[in-house]
Amino acid sequence: MTERVRNKARIDVELFKKIEERTNHDVVAFVEGIGTMIGEDSRFFHYGLTSSDVLDTANSLALVEAGKILLDALKKLCDVLWNTANRYRYTPTIGRTHGVHAEPTSFGLKVLGWYSEMKRNVLRLERAIEEVSYGKISGAVGNYANVPPEVEERALSYLGLKAEPVSTQVVPRDRHAHYLATLGIIAAGIERIAVEIRHLQRTEVLEVEEPFKEGQRGSSAMPHKKNPITCERLTGLSRMMRAFVEPALENVALWHERDISHSSVERYIFPDATQTLYYMIVTATKVIRDMRVNEEKMKKNLNLTKGLVFSQRVLLKLIEKGLTRKEAYDIVQRNALKTWESEKHFLEHLLEDEEVKKLVAEEELRELFDTSYYLRYVDRIFERFEKE
Amino acid sequence: MTERVRNKARIDVELFKKIEERTNHDVVAFVEGIGTMIGEDSRFFHYGLTSSDVLDTANSLALVEAGKILLDALKKLCDVLWNTANRYRYTPTIGRTHGVHAEPTSFGLKVLGWYSEMKRNVLRLERAIEEVSYGKISGAVGNYANVPPEVEERALSYLGLKAEPVSTQVVPRDRHAHYLATLGIIAAGIERIAVEIRHLQRTEVLEVEEPFKEGQRGSSAMPHKKNPITCERLTGLSRMMRAFVEPALENVALWHERDISHSSVERYIFPDATQTLYYMIVTATKVIRDMRVNEEKMKKNLNLTKGLVFSQRVLLKLIEKGLTRKEAYDIVQRNALKTWESEKHFLEHLLEDEEVKKLVAEEELRELFDTSYYLRYVDRIFERFEKE
Amino acid sequence: MTERVRNKARIDVELFKKIEERTNHDVVAFVEGIGTMIGEDSRFFHYGLTSSDVLDTANSLALVEAGKILLDALKKLCDVLWNTANRYRYTPTIGRTHGVHAEPTSFGLKVLGWYSEMKRNVLRLERAIEEVSYGKISGAVGNYANVPPEVEERALSYLGLKAEPVSTQVVPRDRHAHYLATLGIIAAGIERIAVEIRHLQRTEVLEVEEPFKEGQRGSSAMPHKKNPITCERLTGLSRMMRAFVEPALENVALWHERDISHSSVERYIFPDATQTLYYMIVTATKVIRDMRVNEEKMKKNLNLTKGLVFSQRVLLKLIEKGLTRKEAYDIVQRNALKTWESEKHFLEHLLEDEEVKKLVAEEELRELFDTSYYLRYVDRIFERFEKE
Amino acid sequence: MTERVRNKARIDVELFKKIEERTNHDVVAFVEGIGTMIGEDSRFFHYGLTSSDVLDTANSLALVEAGKILLDALKKLCDVLWNTANRYRYTPTIGRTHGVHAEPTSFGLKVLGWYSEMKRNVLRLERAIEEVSYGKISGAVGNYANVPPEVEERALSYLGLKAEPVSTQVVPRDRHAHYLATLGIIAAGIERIAVEIRHLQRTEVLEVEEPFKEGQRGSSAMPHKKNPITCERLTGLSRMMRAFVEPALENVALWHERDISHSSVERYIFPDATQTLYYMIVTATKVIRDMRVNEEKMKKNLNLTKGLVFSQRVLLKLIEKGLTRKEAYDIVQRNALKTWESEKHFLEHLLEDEEVKKLVAEEELRELFDTSYYLRYVDRIFERFEKE
Repeated sequence: MTERVRNKARIDVELFKKIEERTNHDVVAFVEGIGTMIGEDSRFFHYGLTSSDVLDTANSLALVEAGKILLDALKKLCDVLWNTANRYRYTPTIGRTHGVHAEPTSFGLKVLGWYSEMKRNVLRLERAIEEVSYGKISGAVGNYANVPPEVEERALSYLGLKAEPVSTQVVPRDRHAHYLATLGIIAAGIERIAVEIRHLQRTEVLEVEEPFKEGQRGSSAMPHKKNPITCERLTGLSRMMRAFVEPALENVALWHERDISHSSVERYIFPDATQTLYYMIVTATKVIRDMRVNEEKMKKNLNLTKGLVFSQRVLLKLIEKGLTRKEAYDIVQRNALKTWESEKHFLEHLLEDEEVKKLVAEEELRELFDTSYYLRYVDRIFERFEKE
Repeated sequence: MTERVRNKARIDVELFKKIEERTNHDVVAFVEGIGTMIGEDSRFFHYGLTSSDVLDTANSLALVEAGKILLDALKKLCDVLWNTANRYRYTPTIGRTHGVHAEPTSFGLKVLGWYSEMKRNVLRLERAIEEVSYGKISGAVGNYANVPPEVEERALSYLGLKAEPVSTQVVPRDRHAHYLATLGIIAAGIERIAVEIRHLQRTEVLEVEEPFKEGQRGSSAMPHKKNPITCERLTGLSRMMRAFVEPALENVALWHERDISHSSVERYIFPDATQTLYYMIVTATKVIRDMRVNEEKMKKNLNLTKGLVFSQRVLLKLIEKGLTRKEAYDIVQRNALKTWESEKHFLEHLLEDEEVKKLVAEEELRELFDTSYYLRYVDRIFERFEKE
Repeated sequence: MTERVRNKARIDVELFKKIEERTNHDVVAFVEGIGTMIGEDSRFFHYGLTSSDVLDTANSLALVEAGKILLDALKKLCDVLWNTANRYRYTPTIGRTHGVHAEPTSFGLKVLGWYSEMKRNVLRLERAIEEVSYGKISGAVGNYANVPPEVEERALSYLGLKAEPVSTQVVPRDRHAHYLATLGIIAAGIERIAVEIRHLQRTEVLEVEEPFKEGQRGSSAMPHKKNPITCERLTGLSRMMRAFVEPALENVALWHERDISHSSVERYIFPDATQTLYYMIVTATKVIRDMRVNEEKMKKNLNLTKGLVFSQRVLLKLIEKGLTRKEAYDIVQRNALKTWESEKHFLEHLLEDEEVKKLVAEEELRELFDTSYYLRYVDRIFERFEKE
Repeated sequence: MTERVRNKARIDVELFKKIEERTNHDVVAFVEGIGTMIGEDSRFFHYGLTSSDVLDTANSLALVEAGKILLDALKKLCDVLWNTANRYRYTPTIGRTHGVHAEPTSFGLKVLGWYSEMKRNVLRLERAIEEVSYGKISGAVGNYANVPPEVEERALSYLGLKAEPVSTQVVPRDRHAHYLATLGIIAAGIERIAVEIRHLQRTEVLEVEEPFKEGQRGSSAMPHKKNPITCERLTGLSRMMRAFVEPALENVALWHERDISHSSVERYIFPDATQTLYYMIVTATKVIRDMRVNEEKMKKNLNLTKGLVFSQRVLLKLIEKGLTRKEAYDIVQRNALKTWESEKHFLEHLLEDEEVKKLVAEEELRELFDTSYYLRYVDRIFERFEKE
């Protein structure tokens, strides 16, 4: 019989639409439409099924497939991040907190942080896919009234899905909420990268530039402009991805054995969220791969504060020499403020400070102003991932 | 010159797209494309303008136009609500709080509440439209560097827009956030109506049914079903409308004189929010207009609690007769609980209660169980709108 | 030295506050305050540390602890759900889709669905706790500038935490976002239960009532009222829990090696989300444990539609007898609509239908109207969890 | 009687709490508690009222009062913004789009943009306050069953409130949603200011610093740091304010004549949103008033791109001289790219460009590089507000 049906049935969207106009029900239209094609056998087509047995199972198939495409893309992003992190493993750059220079670090370490986050996201996405790999063929209210569990098991196993242990008319929506939340978290991670690059591309910093094509125009008015518009776009898209999480959470509390309020929501968020995130991942991958890193400018910026970024080392040295933390802090902050206000280097101010002089020899002081000191554990951090 | 340009220029999407591929900038593509058509005159085409002078002004035009379409639809909804409220002005129905029968009211009053809310929404929408009726032709950073304010004024007045008093490269995004928030509030009002109808259509209540077409099928599995799927859809769509508010709010804090992160967001939320709300309003209008109201069932449900819904009147009568509030409350609650547990009418329980007997004559007690008493101020409430 | 410090140091909130007033920095105040107590040793107190080494690690400790408390509560909820599901395993009740009667099911199966969801939530919460079990003592920008990785490892192992593989100044915020999203998903699951009970307690349904204390008053005005206020409260709280997810997601994209914008957010959402969810879980547990289930009313409601809920079985029987799906559907829907409109039982309408008569014998038809048929797979579904 | 009651009644929280423990209802506890104090007169205390007549009216009073406090604060912020805008009216600074230098503008204009937005917010807040200035004393389901409209009118007029035209048991929640949305929009405007200052305070830019107290410490580890932590805090708080909007929107669709799910939500968002916004406004006011503006650094940064920010003027000059837009654009972009790559000034590159040379005399070219040109309409923009 299966073969007989296959030979006769075909997808005739026009026909289905016409029936839907009358019946106002998409699955009924499909079943009736196919019914007219397969004749006698139509008696056992959709036999004992409720629409959601078909739709919700198909839904899971689509989400699993979309999830796998996202997963592949995410792993490629990880590869590019890993390579980029290694390329700049020893490239000194200033670490910034609150947008203010803090202490030297390596640019590779910054990228490694993104890599590490995306590795977590790979794991989260794998779990999210697993969580939606459930279909259901359990009838109108989930009790297998007209089709026994064996049929569900067999059909789902063909499709590579598992049976929802307790379904209602539908697969419970906490699974989908979890999936959408995961997508939102991944998007936020890409936003983190995008925001960093936007910062690094600002005119005053200009350590990194997102790829800018030959012939590209940054502005219709100002021919000198090269703007991080791709990263800005990624930032905006993350806002959308975040916005899709909330309605997915609202879909969980359906009424009784289901109401259909989730459906209109899902017609927006399922395609929009999966496609948007895919675009985000692929675009971020290109940006990372092709971005222009200006190591010279990084070095230059490192010295912008005339040595202030070494202040903690001076603080600790003074403590080591016998001062209390508070005494040491006051001395360092005093000289730091002078440096902010003047054109002179922090080291020079310190060398002129009577209290410092008494405690630390010039050579010893000079040695503190050394960028490589801050990179001495970089390999140790990278090793954490090399073992994998 | 204007005429010369008009004769030569034309919209050639393919051409613009081709240029955009190279320039990666939509407005540059448009300006270059038109430029090739109009020859010599292209020198003064887009002269002194920045892309956003064009785009953001066009944006406002689109939002104003969409807003007006929404406004018209909303007013039609108001008309239908007003007529429906009047049709059922004196139709008694049980008022429910917490889903539990409270006191009698009129079905028209219920609908009048929706009408009153939608009238507020009309006002809000008018204000929101006014708030986005602002364009800008003030150059790259809003200071009229290359085009004087006079040009802006003249051009915008052609378009029926006002000049943004202080623009950056763009019209500030608080205007758009306010617009989106207003749309979200209107959607929530429609959701309120939809949820009510869903409740009233449940099998046990069945006082109202949303329109069900001849030939429509409620379920592919259960031929007996008539489901409020339209109102469920409206409920879901309201979730989406709410979700669009948040990214609009995030768009306000653009960096400096603008970054373009808002743009990708707006490509989702502007079309999706305006179109979705339009669908919601038009659909709600049809549902209200064609819904089936079962006045008989309303009457039947009113009596479902065997008189318990008159409990407050009994309470107040006992107080009137000299009891303290607490004494009266205890007596009424006691008899109410008995009524819940038994098959007997609340009035009968009261008539058998020794304490009640002592205080209230039977006739006086009977008079309290009168639905029309609860409708005596209905006209007063309607009058509040008739004066308009 | 450790002992010396321990003997002298004490928590003196007033002192710390006073220093904070001057320094505008909480950790500096703490360190200076302790410094004045421990004298000489203060030189090595907070030596080489940045504030976040302390705060973010403490943060993780708090989230892990809160998570474990939530986990315990959630497991207790699971126990109560499991017991309740079993108690009502064979209690017939009507399954409802779209708020409309669909087909019979068992009340225990409904509860089992909640149990199954909460089991998933247990797993999710365990993972979320694992994900925030990471501290960091890696200095101002995460490169161990002044304290080697060994110290971090040792200190964190005392605290039962793992070392963040790549930290910035802080533990990356995707971990916290994931934690908050998990809490939001759990809350949505509780909302699902709460909404169901609210529905089942409505006057017209009244199959279940949440616990109502002796002496409790449902309304200050209407002494007859027993309202599902606890479940309504849970519904509202779920809205808050959802709301907390979004700012957690926004916290991920901090600037560079961190900005402190996440901190003010976390002072709201960490305590509010964990405490609110705890209240929700504990309250839901009590509601489930003590709710009043009216099996009689369930039976009564099952028969409310005069047999319509058996319509699918009739449909399938007619197909079995040789009709096409469409023919059968039309016959059943025709009789179903008559039943809606009349006072007669669906079976009687069918028995009078000439077409039905020709195909199905009366006895065979009668047999279809059997609730127990719908429960025949209940044990199979429960078995899925008994193996655990 | 009023006087008699006043003399005897008193707020005894302990007593009320004790009664609430038994009744599980706050208003009942209050009414009973007062009842025991005022004896005989208690019969007419709360007579004919439902709890929400009291609570929802009180609610509106609180929101109106909070709104007015916010309004006052907002107006003060406007004053400070206006003064600040005027102080820096002619202070040249670089306008930035996409974080990249665009064209010169004035710092005062930047601040005037904030002022203009906050003026809009004043208007919005006034409307939002007006929208919640509605109470209700209309009984359990809004039909004045036991208290006539005259009583409502009189009581509300004492309180400075208007009567809700169609209430249910409560004032409809679209009013509160609108209020919360307005608060969220205002917060977003403050975030916009805060983000700008954070950008301007970054080490590489350092044009503006938020107030830094004598004795303040920026970091426990790095004595040189001065971080924009206040503005970062404002940024985070805006995330919370945004988060409060969504549950307020969800509260609109209450069931029937009300369910109480909104109440738990409002116990978070009403106090938290109003207090948080108040803190934000007051803090922003202080930051603006006391921030340190470095006009020297602004001038320096203006020249950072070696004249590139004048590129549009050069473009327009070349068009004026007869080139098409595209020809001109290519020439300017070519020289701009050279400038980015080299150490030479843009003007020098242009002076060496053969094509430019042919068209524009050196003197004419030099004149284009003039900052004051970009400020020539500043007064015109300010005038728009001076007329007020």
